Formats: sequence, C-alpha cells, structure tokens
Amino acid sequence: MFAEVGYERATIRAIAAAADVDKSSVIQHFGTKQELFREAVHWDIPLAEIIADDPTTTTDNLVRGMLAAWAADPNSPMAVLLRTSMTSEDAAEILRTRITAQYLATMAATIEAPDARLRAALAGAMLMGIVSQRHILKMPDLEHADIEDILRLITPLVSTLLDPHSGE
Amino acid sequence: MFAEVGYERATIRAIAAAADVDKSSVIQHFGTKQELFREAVHWDIPLAEIIADDPTTTTDNLVRGMLAAWAADPNSPMAVLLRTSMTSEDAAEILRTRITAQYLATMAATIEAPDARLRAALAGAMLMGIVSQRHILKMPDLEHADIEDILRLITPLVSTLLDPHSGE
Repeated sequence: MFAEVGYERATIRAIAAAADVDKSSVIQHFGTKQELFREAVHWDIPLAEIIADDPTTTTDNLVRGMLAAWAADPNSPMAVLLRTSMTSEDAAEILRTRITAQYLATMAATIEAPDARLRAALAGAMLMGIVSQRHILKMPDLEHADIEDILRLITPLVSTLLDPHSGE
Repeated sequence: MFAEVGYERATIRAIAAAADVDKSSVIQHFGTKQELFREAVHWDIPLAEIIADDPTTTTDNLVRGMLAAWAADPNSPMAVLLRTSMTSEDAAEILRTRITAQYLATMAATIEAPDARLRAALAGAMLMGIVSQRHILKMPDLEHADIEDILRLITPLVSTLLDPHSGE
C-alpha cells in the first residue's frame, strides 16, 4: 500500500481492508501509521556479505549488490523507503538514521583515509542516485542500459572512493 | 506551495488563496494543476555556461554548478521537481523528458567514447544522488561536509566518466 499510494495517502483503514482484518487489530499490533510504516520498510543492509578482506571485493559486492537488489524488486522496503523519504520527513528520518547507524561507520572503518566517513557517504549517495534514476525515475538511458555496462563504468569510481590507495 | 506540501496535496484553491487571486483566474491562466506545476518547476539546465572547450573545465563547471545551485536554494524549481518526481509519475515524466532532451545529447556530444550517453547519464545520476542526500535527505555526513571536500573527492570521478581519455 505504501509502495502503491505513498506514505501520506496510505491509511490504516485501507491497509486493514487490503489485509482483510479489522482496523482495530492493525492499531493494536502496530500502533500508529508511522510505526506500521517503520515495520513495513524494515530492511538490514547486508554488510556482512558486502565487506570482504580485500577492498576490491568489498567495492564489487557493494556496487553489484545494490544494482541487483533494485533490479530484483523495485518495490523492496529499501526502494519504498527511499522514494517516500523525498517527500516525508518521517521517512527521511528513518532512512537517515538507518544508513548512518548501520552502514556508515562500518564501511568507513574499511577505508584507509582521513575522510573515510565522507568517502563512504559519497559512495552510498552516488549509488542511490544511479539506482533511483534507473528504477524509480526510469531515465531511458539508464533504465535500458545493460547492468554489466553500468558496473564496468561505475565500479572503478566507487573503488577510488572506498580504496583510495588501490591505484598506487 | 508545491515545495511545502508536495504536488499531490497542493490544490489550485490553496495556491490561489496564497496568491490572493480567484481560483477561476488561476484556472484561466494555467489550466490544470499539472500545467501549473509544469510552469512552476520550469528551469533550464545552463549548459551553455557549463560546456567549455576543455573537458576538465566542463566537468568542474558541472559538478561545482550543481552543488552550488542546490546550496543556494533547496527549494529551487529543480529541487522541487526532483523531490516530487519520486512519488508522482506526472513529475517524473517532466524530469525525465527535460533531462533527456536538454542535457543528455549535448553532454554526450562532448564525450569521446562509444558509450557517451550512458556516461553522461551516470554522471548526472551520481550528482543528483549526492545533492539529494545532502540537501533533501540531509544525511549528516553529507549535510555538514565542506563543499570543497566534496568537490575534491567527486570531481575526479565525474572527470573519469565525462573525459575518459584524461588519464592517458
């Protein structure tokens, strides 16, 4: 429901009706719409699968994992949260907190550079920009591009950010 | 009004009231809400100011121009359109058409590589990701970063995309 009509226009009444339950039991289980939304868009960034001993592998895992996850499900919790976060401060706060708490410090710890957190944040933002223009905005040149062509062009750039000594 | 409450929740009635005019004269001048929105978020990508003879200067102009424009006005027509495009197909269509028609072919023509359009599209998407996480989502590590630090890290990456022969 949040994916279809957005956070603002989704109502607990309509969600309850679609789930074929009483509105009162939705409220009993989840409380407010904000709490229900928080549960609905819950996802964990699979950092244990992304981070490898070798920074090159970490970069590959991150870039390929992000593009593959969006291709597999354009209405994943992550995608719905990102889309919603642009127009709802509630959703923006959830996304901001999750990325900062789950992703940034862990990814930054793998980077040997003084501006490690900024580098990790920029890599995440770049990738979010690409997947959102490919899968949400459906920019024709990105939507129809081969995923391998995107990986070939983007992976070296992310590598420059996350593994600044790789070219030395 | 579109910036404050979003495209879906803005009404011609409220816009007319805020402008202290009759609803009927808004309709007479602009037609539908969609047409009024299209006028309100009109902006031209200043490509004549961005594209230089030298690809390095073009990249610098593009990256610095985009970051500076968002810093100067987080509610610029471009910013409101991008934000809205994530949850409104009307707005997504306007943004998609404008970027594809105005930016892509012209920027791609400056790139000497077979995948010039994809390179231009990826550069635009990366930059959109960074400015939207800095100014719309307000990710703390990006919001509080010095613009010069972002430029120092990002400009060489965009240059690799737009001027692939620069390192040769």
